[in-house]
Amino acid sequence: MNTDKHFRTTNISKIKSFRKNIPSTSELVTGILKGDISALARAITLIESSNKKHSHSSQEIIERCLPHSGKSIRIGITGVPGVGKSTFIEAFGRSLTKLGKKVAVLAVDPSSSISKGSILGDKTRMQELVRDPNAFIRPSPAGSSLGGVARKTRESIVLCEAAGYDIILIETVGVGQSETAVHGMADFFLLLKLAGAGDELQGIKRGIMEMADLITINKADGKNLEQAKQAKMEFSKALHLYPPKRNGWTTKVLSCSATEYTGIEEIWEVIKEFAEKTKNNGHFNSNRKEQNKYWLLQTIDDLLKQDFYQNKKIGPLMEKMTSQVLEGKLSPFSAAEKLIKLSKED
Amino acid sequence: MNTDKHFRTTNISKIKSFRKNIPSTSELVTGILKGDISALARAITLIESSNKKHSHSSQEIIERCLPHSGKSIRIGITGVPGVGKSTFIEAFGRSLTKLGKKVAVLAVDPSSSISKGSILGDKTRMQELVRDPNAFIRPSPAGSSLGGVARKTRESIVLCEAAGYDIILIETVGVGQSETAVHGMADFFLLLKLAGAGDELQGIKRGIMEMADLITINKADGKNLEQAKQAKMEFSKALHLYPPKRNGWTTKVLSCSATEYTGIEEIWEVIKEFAEKTKNNGHFNSNRKEQNKYWLLQTIDDLLKQDFYQNKKIGPLMEKMTSQVLEGKLSPFSAAEKLIKLSKED
Repeated sequence: MNTDKHFRTTNISKIKSFRKNIPSTSELVTGILKGDISALARAITLIESSNKKHSHSSQEIIERCLPHSGKSIRIGITGVPGVGKSTFIEAFGRSLTKLGKKVAVLAVDPSSSISKGSILGDKTRMQELVRDPNAFIRPSPAGSSLGGVARKTRESIVLCEAAGYDIILIETVGVGQSETAVHGMADFFLLLKLAGAGDELQGIKRGIMEMADLITINKADGKNLEQAKQAKMEFSKALHLYPPKRNGWTTKVLSCSATEYTGIEEIWEVIKEFAEKTKNNGHFNSNRKEQNKYWLLQTIDDLLKQDFYQNKKIGPLMEKMTSQVLEGKLSPFSAAEKLIKLSKED
Repeated sequence: MNTDKHFRTTNISKIKSFRKNIPSTSELVTGILKGDISALARAITLIESSNKKHSHSSQEIIERCLPHSGKSIRIGITGVPGVGKSTFIEAFGRSLTKLGKKVAVLAVDPSSSISKGSILGDKTRMQELVRDPNAFIRPSPAGSSLGGVARKTRESIVLCEAAGYDIILIETVGVGQSETAVHGMADFFLLLKLAGAGDELQGIKRGIMEMADLITINKADGKNLEQAKQAKMEFSKALHLYPPKRNGWTTKVLSCSATEYTGIEEIWEVIKEFAEKTKNNGHFNSNRKEQNKYWLLQTIDDLLKQDFYQNKKIGPLMEKMTSQVLEGKLSPFSAAEKLIKLSKED
């Protein structure tokens, strides 16, 4: 018992001294602006914290980083599980740091809070990139809602840009609605596909195809090479069915092999061409403005719902009213009105 | 001036006496349950009223009609302008009343508040159906938001069912998001298409194709006949690309001519088959329950936003903060938080 007590006391004093070492928001901002990776990582941890005490400092950090943000190219990368996203990002990221770029890799994966970090959680998949001094890799934040997860990632982009990262890669899973969220924070959207998986046109999510600025057939190597060529042709054909994009860009199709490092450098060439074209015709900036407006309205909506559903009176009543609605005893509209009225009472 | 004053006084007294004649909610409910068309029309007018005074009575009417509702088949009908929706509904509606059915025709058209009733506003387009004692036709309610318009139509369905209508046709325009709203209140979703308009596969809204339980090529007559056959084949082929529906139903393709009254009766046969199949496998009812839940959550969301944006403090500040966000001076998330905080202060 004595040792146990001693152990506890020591631990508490350790925690206290650790707390004392927490840098102030000013120190964190200064560190970020100098490009200090540990300050950046700590600030992102604050943003990701669900502790309301941290919310004030994290908002202050973001506001102070905002004037120094915005200079990167934000690239969203999506593809179904098995398409080889991690290996691709490892190869693509390395090709960018070789060009002298500073690359940050972030992710939006709402499922990672359940599966404990399926995306980028296993940094060992990016062994080389993780050791690269010009790369910063951060797994997807956890969260119970896509809105919350996406918000944290988007705020982290601001910090990474303020820390001097030129290129932000934002990875997401190729299922569900997280693509829409990542598309809403990216300048350029890259869809990774596989050839020959019976997947060329059937079962493809048209919404995601329409978002893509570039489709890249990955694993175009060995026995797959011929199939990849075929798939590339089919995608190019299918893309003709789509109306031209407002920004004047026509979606391109490439193929690559992340493991054999072929076709990787061409991807950056396409992205540079895209950036030049859309910066010249004004769409690069107008798109970012639209995204900002979208996030403002989206966050208002999220926060309104959060306030409502976290209201202690609502929970049990919501359940009761839902079952009355399902049994046809109460109209969904009356139920909603009653619940809203109740949520406003003190 | 004197005549003018006299005119005004007379009018006011007329209005007053008209007001006195307004039946009570109990009288309206009794009338509706007897199938009295004028009671039904008056109750729907109450539902559509934006006067908050009417909200209590209309909710009471709906609650009292609810136990008598639910027995109809609700059929959503969509198609782009020019596809011949009104003529189709005239022909299809008549084919149903000939079978002894009572048919109500409602609409969801959020644009009608601007264009003053583009859909069904011109009842002369349905000259025969409008005189049919077994048909009840009601133009789209007006409203500034799709949510509001859809809500009113959905509540009118309850009343029509309580008044004994077996079949509810809900018309909508083939553009924008109103299809999703109508799909969310219909048991069966019918998409009207034209052949040969270069419209078979290109430019088609895939989301709407996926919602359809039946696609009907209208205007399959005269010179169009061959093209309609071709289009029918192409749609059938295209539908193979879609995964099977959860309810076990495979989307069918038919062709018809509303003006020549060919292929019209076959449509009801398909709908009967659909109803039998989905009632047997339980999806008919589970779909309605899901719809009720959807409307509950949707209405909560709508009302929360309505409260927020109608808050007098929010309007001017929203504008100011939006421009700060667009200029990159304020993060969209901070702006949202500040606005929400402000909306809660008294």
